[in-house]
Amino acid sequence: MKIFSRTVVLLFLSAYMYAENGHDLWLRNKNAVSVNVVCAKNTATIAIAKQELQQDWQGAPNASVVLTIKPDKAIKGDGFRLSQTTIQANSDYGVLYGVYELLRRQQTGEEITAAEVVNPSYERRVLDHWDNQNGTIERGYAGRSIFWRSTKDSLVVTEADKKLWREYARANASVGINGSVLNNVNANVDVLTIDYLKRVKAIADELRPYGVKVYLSAKFSAPSQIGGIKTCDPLDPEVIKWWKDKAKEIYRLIPDFGGFLVKANSEGQPGPQDYKRTHAEGANMMADALKPYGGIVMWRAFVYSASDNDRAKQAYEEFVPLDGQFRDNVIIQVKNGPIDFQPREPFSPLFGAMKKTSLMPEVQITQEYLGHSTHLVFLSTMWEEFLKSDTYQAGEGSTVARCTDGSLFPQKHTAIAGVANIGLDVNWCGHHFAQSNWYAFGRLAWNNSLTSEQIAAEWIKLTFQQHASESSDWQANFLTPVKQMMLESREAAVSYMMPLGLHHIMSANEHYGPGPWWAPKKMRKDWTPPYYHQADSIGVGFNRTHTGSNAVAQYHEPLYSQFDNIETCPETYLLWFHHAAWNHQMKSGRTLWSELCYHYDRGVQQVRQFQKIWDKTESYVDAERFLQVQSKLRSQSRNAQLWKDGCLLYFQQFSKMPIPYDIERPVNDLEEMIKNDTRRPQRPAAFSSNRQLNQAH
Amino acid sequence: MKIFSRTVVLLFLSAYMYAENGHDLWLRNKNAVSVNVVCAKNTATIAIAKQELQQDWQGAPNASVVLTIKPDKAIKGDGFRLSQTTIQANSDYGVLYGVYELLRRQQTGEEITAAEVVNPSYERRVLDHWDNQNGTIERGYAGRSIFWRSTKDSLVVTEADKKLWREYARANASVGINGSVLNNVNANVDVLTIDYLKRVKAIADELRPYGVKVYLSAKFSAPSQIGGIKTCDPLDPEVIKWWKDKAKEIYRLIPDFGGFLVKANSEGQPGPQDYKRTHAEGANMMADALKPYGGIVMWRAFVYSASDNDRAKQAYEEFVPLDGQFRDNVIIQVKNGPIDFQPREPFSPLFGAMKKTSLMPEVQITQEYLGHSTHLVFLSTMWEEFLKSDTYQAGEGSTVARCTDGSLFPQKHTAIAGVANIGLDVNWCGHHFAQSNWYAFGRLAWNNSLTSEQIAAEWIKLTFQQHASESSDWQANFLTPVKQMMLESREAAVSYMMPLGLHHIMSANEHYGPGPWWAPKKMRKDWTPPYYHQADSIGVGFNRTHTGSNAVAQYHEPLYSQFDNIETCPETYLLWFHHAAWNHQMKSGRTLWSELCYHYDRGVQQVRQFQKIWDKTESYVDAERFLQVQSKLRSQSRNAQLWKDGCLLYFQQFSKMPIPYDIERPVNDLEEMIKNDTRRPQRPAAFSSNRQLNQAH
Repeated sequence: MKIFSRTVVLLFLSAYMYAENGHDLWLRNKNAVSVNVVCAKNTATIAIAKQELQQDWQGAPNASVVLTIKPDKAIKGDGFRLSQTTIQANSDYGVLYGVYELLRRQQTGEEITAAEVVNPSYERRVLDHWDNQNGTIERGYAGRSIFWRSTKDSLVVTEADKKLWREYARANASVGINGSVLNNVNANVDVLTIDYLKRVKAIADELRPYGVKVYLSAKFSAPSQIGGIKTCDPLDPEVIKWWKDKAKEIYRLIPDFGGFLVKANSEGQPGPQDYKRTHAEGANMMADALKPYGGIVMWRAFVYSASDNDRAKQAYEEFVPLDGQFRDNVIIQVKNGPIDFQPREPFSPLFGAMKKTSLMPEVQITQEYLGHSTHLVFLSTMWEEFLKSDTYQAGEGSTVARCTDGSLFPQKHTAIAGVANIGLDVNWCGHHFAQSNWYAFGRLAWNNSLTSEQIAAEWIKLTFQQHASESSDWQANFLTPVKQMMLESREAAVSYMMPLGLHHIMSANEHYGPGPWWAPKKMRKDWTPPYYHQADSIGVGFNRTHTGSNAVAQYHEPLYSQFDNIETCPETYLLWFHHAAWNHQMKSGRTLWSELCYHYDRGVQQVRQFQKIWDKTESYVDAERFLQVQSKLRSQSRNAQLWKDGCLLYFQQFSKMPIPYDIERPVNDLEEMIKNDTRRPQRPAAFSSNRQLNQAH
Repeated sequence: MKIFSRTVVLLFLSAYMYAENGHDLWLRNKNAVSVNVVCAKNTATIAIAKQELQQDWQGAPNASVVLTIKPDKAIKGDGFRLSQTTIQANSDYGVLYGVYELLRRQQTGEEITAAEVVNPSYERRVLDHWDNQNGTIERGYAGRSIFWRSTKDSLVVTEADKKLWREYARANASVGINGSVLNNVNANVDVLTIDYLKRVKAIADELRPYGVKVYLSAKFSAPSQIGGIKTCDPLDPEVIKWWKDKAKEIYRLIPDFGGFLVKANSEGQPGPQDYKRTHAEGANMMADALKPYGGIVMWRAFVYSASDNDRAKQAYEEFVPLDGQFRDNVIIQVKNGPIDFQPREPFSPLFGAMKKTSLMPEVQITQEYLGHSTHLVFLSTMWEEFLKSDTYQAGEGSTVARCTDGSLFPQKHTAIAGVANIGLDVNWCGHHFAQSNWYAFGRLAWNNSLTSEQIAAEWIKLTFQQHASESSDWQANFLTPVKQMMLESREAAVSYMMPLGLHHIMSANEHYGPGPWWAPKKMRKDWTPPYYHQADSIGVGFNRTHTGSNAVAQYHEPLYSQFDNIETCPETYLLWFHHAAWNHQMKSGRTLWSELCYHYDRGVQQVRQFQKIWDKTESYVDAERFLQVQSKLRSQSRNAQLWKDGCLLYFQQFSKMPIPYDIERPVNDLEEMIKNDTRRPQRPAAFSSNRQLNQAH
């Protein structure tokens, strides 16, 4: 008996300790009660659905759950009809999504009262992995790639690989993600060769039962680089044939291959313009190759040249004239803002402007500009703000969400992409709270009208709850304050990094700390912060009004007029659209300079508040996760102070105005910060062969 | 006319700009009015006295000032009798001190109503320079030595040398300092050889007109090291003769040579105990050699061995039994506290305990343990607290001041020493506010009953006032807040470094940041912080009560009982005398742990407050000094936070109690701090040949 007990204790302990490292994400082991699952069909996916129910059932003991696959007009795509004990869907994938929904409802205590139909907002809910075939990840802060290795035997598929890929797929399926682009958009062409494609097939085989399709980033120069053809001109017959053959080869290995993601004529990548062809001609050629197999092309609109006077305008200028020229299996992938995943940008004016073209939003889950895996920043609020932005392109209420999910414009395909924050770190994302961004992306991709508060509450309950129904004490002392912290965290980051519409003033090398001063003489101007903040003795901010670059004109009225006028422009975007005087009077009655000071300071104070909130949760969370988050928050706090001090002391050189004396003084010296910043290894020259590792996207 | 104007402007500007670098200390150029000075005698010193009056006179225009040298029973030593226009003294040095007093009164606006007699508290008011003959300074944070150079021609005396030495002597004279020990107490024996003595003579020649005598640190092993004698036994006739001859040689060059400072049998230095002789036998032998010339021996009581159970007790145990055995030209130099210049120590129990021996206090002006030349810490309040400490050795009111200035015990000689903070930095001390500590030491050495408030006010007026009588605006917005900051600064440092009686928990290498964790396995225990803080699961602090080392017994009643009892022991000394439980209830009602947290936090908050105070003075102070002080305060603020975080997180490992949640959380990680601390170059092994550069004193 004694021996038995000890074994039980050890097993319990090891399971418990395993759970505390965060590897289980929001899918933690529960003490399930017994359930009986009935389904007429038996596929790998249905087997998973059954297993999940049996493993995590928290409903009525010994209940019978019926899974039905039956077409239904009310059910769209991956959607399902759900009651407490029935799930009906068009496909076994739909059933699986319904299972995860049912289990989530049980675990978060959200009742299912009547039968509900739950349909996804987007057909394709895709993670873009910026993973290089050597195992590194561009802008990855959670260790190396889960798909690729640098070692000699890098293409050998191990059982450990497959287990990890299944875990990954399960996590995706549980929140509705159904696609993965396995390699960096700054693509290495080798991925299209047979050795790599075999590994892609192996990955696809593990992901398939969970409904996750694989996609690849395709380099436009592939026909020359690996096909031996002299040109890559998209109208050249040899080139066209090469891509058709390549598609055929891929689909022979992976019948449900999702398609290509292409970054063309952007930051040095090859593209159709190298042959005087348009983006449409390039994209269509590839789309035609994929068409027979149901594949799509996701073609990025992230283009800008150094010669233009305003980078923010260029994607619009380049793509809007092509509206209507794309094949119906091409979808233009547009970053949420006009520049590049900054802490806050207004929505890209492309949304809603291309009415005859499928458009998909691209957001960044990995925190390239938001503190990497060190800062606790819940990005859901940023994405919610973006998705709910009204473009007015088809009248009031033409939100970005509605402009992209097919409810306003006819789109053959709808999709949304998020740049993944996933790596080999045992907790997947490098920061326990960064998992919430993976979760939130999936949930919003499934339902683009969810609120961040709902998502945060779900995630906290699934991730930290010990029991399906925790005490009111837990709710008051853990759920409520932690949710509050998450919901405030992005605005805090905006405040201590780039408040009031400031953007792209980060340190050039890592995109981590402040760097408003960074401007080497020979550097492309549009890669240096002074290009964006334009600080001078008069004021600060980029004049994008009709007296400046007139980027405001790309917005539909009434936004054009609203943004153009400094009195009506929302203060959150003030310095995005205006070069405002230091003594410009803000709505608070303060000068712009003072307001800037208060914003930076508030950001710092908020992070300190987060530290207090977290420290108070100590008795409600396991030691391992508690200490890791506590330590990260300390770094974030120091870092927020660096941002505040660096930016205020730098801008003060222009404003010549004192930092209001009721604000805590800077503790870092500007000269020292600049010295430390420029002392770091510079990123490689823009067009060197190393650019794949360190470039913007 | 135009050319003339421009010249005037340029002259004005350059004089102005020169002043702003701080080199003029508290002796800034004033726009003097005309004065007529009358003196019957004409010496180099009187010439200086006249020049100072003419240069800085702020009294009635065209007044006649009469300087008289005439013995007077009421005037003691360097004292003087002062009215608005007359100065009478025993010597021309006394006249010079009177001149500086008169000018200071004019510049600070303190009236002289009736004739006053002003006498010094101590006969000898000495700066100890820990300057090595290679030009480095042990615990010097203001550049290299003003006396010694490392270059080949290091002994050549230049005009620049002489000018600097005169400026140094003038500054000393202006606050009453009349002696300088020119070399490190960890002495290099070469200073007693003729080449070095010639340089000492050159220095003495420049210092003499200002009344500053030179002294030397003498190494006890000199007879062997440079005399070729086999022993240094103080009772050996050859040794005795060698020192007599050496004294004769020195006095031939420098007739007013002050004498020797000796660190013997301390931290590896040679001494009489090497020959089984007592400190008294060693000191007396040297005193006999100096006696014919009026020289004295300042013999340090800073001795401790690794074997004893409490370092704090050892000086007392070693020296008290020798009371009455010393020659009358020996004076025992005792550090203010029993350990070593910590931010706060109770007074050394030797004060008042040796009633038949001359004792002199040694304080540290250089901020070895108080933030070097980075932290703004006005030390006057520490010295005032020390001098006013009641020893009860001759009944109530037996303050340390009265025990050492001759008012309670017969002492042939009285003296006080301060370890200098002076180097080649253009502002002399490395921090503009560190000048106030040089100033305060001189003022307290002259008058050991002055208040720190008085000293701070004087120094601020002399150092920052543009005009002799500044506006009330200046008083309200500069004098008052800056004085407040200075007066609070030492308590702030105690709070963020070592509150509640904690001591010696600094980083081992630089004695700068926190290092409570530092304890390499083979290190002498009494050189590691854990020896001093004794933190364990029960509590923290060194038990020096009757249940512990019983160091309390070295204090005279009622102090013995007061310190021995945890209920009556002042909380400022709690952890000095007691190993108190983490949950010990403090007078505030808080636990010891909480109180510790609040102290550390308060220290940090205070430095932030100093930053605000200083920032608000911007319009009242020149840009050069404003910016330098502002920058130092920023570093101090960061550093205070490191102290708080390092100490609280370290001690929390023992207390296991939460940091009160209304306190700002740590932003630094303990592991990281320990790693950074131990990553720095270790100081050389205790008895290596390099020890002179890095040892404690």
